[in-house]
Amino acid sequence: MTLDLASTEDAEPQLAALTDLSRRVRDLIDAVALTDVPEGELAAAAAEVAALTERLNAVRRDSPRSFEIGPDGAPRNLGNAVTGSANPHALPLVAEVTPERTVRAELSFRPAHEGPPGTVHGGVSAMILDHLLGHATAVAGFPGMTGTLTLRYRRRVPYGEPLVATAEYVRSEGRKHWSEGRIALPDGTVLVEASGLFIAPSWWSGQGPGPESAGEAG
Amino acid sequence: MTLDLASTEDAEPQLAALTDLSRRVRDLIDAVALTDVPEGELAAAAAEVAALTERLNAVRRDSPRSFEIGPDGAPRNLGNAVTGSANPHALPLVAEVTPERTVRAELSFRPAHEGPPGTVHGGVSAMILDHLLGHATAVAGFPGMTGTLTLRYRRRVPYGEPLVATAEYVRSEGRKHWSEGRIALPDGTVLVEASGLFIAPSWWSGQGPGPESAGEAG
Repeated sequence: MTLDLASTEDAEPQLAALTDLSRRVRDLIDAVALTDVPEGELAAAAAEVAALTERLNAVRRDSPRSFEIGPDGAPRNLGNAVTGSANPHALPLVAEVTPERTVRAELSFRPAHEGPPGTVHGGVSAMILDHLLGHATAVAGFPGMTGTLTLRYRRRVPYGEPLVATAEYVRSEGRKHWSEGRIALPDGTVLVEASGLFIAPSWWSGQGPGPESAGEAG
Repeated sequence: MTLDLASTEDAEPQLAALTDLSRRVRDLIDAVALTDVPEGELAAAAAEVAALTERLNAVRRDSPRSFEIGPDGAPRNLGNAVTGSANPHALPLVAEVTPERTVRAELSFRPAHEGPPGTVHGGVSAMILDHLLGHATAVAGFPGMTGTLTLRYRRRVPYGEPLVATAEYVRSEGRKHWSEGRIALPDGTVLVEASGLFIAPSWWSGQGPGPESAGEAG
């Protein structure tokens, strides 16, 4: 695996292009999930996608881009499955840290996230909340791995509409740290809520961010 | 939204082509997450992806393909975010029903599912287990929506290796039904385990599968 803790300015134009490519592949994912073009068009598209994949694989890393400090001094995780702007699988979830050290993300799910008709798959909401609660625990000073996560589904989660996800650290017992969070409508109506227990790695003394900041990596 | 309960044989070649395209887009997703080709190559790829998306959007459905009965009489959910063979976001999770009416899936995660370095994102495991437990509840005769889901993370989940996920219905109280499941190594070592409460829709009398089989849709 590759773990670069500090990126170089030189890589930024490449990473910007990769972020743009990832965004366009997300559009492609939805287009595939929704398309009704004829068989021949689909086969032609498949051949083009395979050729594109081969070109991108000409220079291939061993693992996705991991946690690093960007040139602006801020941490980032470009390859992460949930937050990575350079990973087409990611929403991507973009969370800001509030002055109260809680986390808040504006988000909008897409058609490719559908489970029941017209509704976001419950597992997709779980995926987002797992990450957000880990992030809230980390920004409170306790990065760690998820130990237990409990989700309560209150209402159907729509896609294609603006939603707000928030999470905050609530308490600790030794190396165990608890956070809570929820996905809600902009008016505050809670759709899915979660509580999680995160466990600090044994090397973590509580004096500063660890080398992998695992709590933010999911 | 579109809800076709019975497909026609005529659509099968198109759906096969769509399944193949989705498989190739999954390869593309991993290629993007791992590529290190120069900026110019990434920009060229982005332009091609945008053109492909536009061609597929020439005939666009309102929502992904939902639950339906295939021409072989078996239920399927081609557009589902977790199980849909025609949705590039999906793993896809392919679960078989055992003679004991439990469910079992062989699966392998990919680099695009990475959270912590070399490890599957905890949220991705949560997404898979939410679906599998709902499916186990449904095949036991109680399709429903997820009410509560609790995940316990025991060990890191690797990607690129064969894993086995299983789930089974355990008990009911009125319209509430509980199932349990886990993702494990082929030798049975449990990596992540889950228990879930699924709530039957009020129209469901328990006499046969409902029109949307929501428990299987996630």
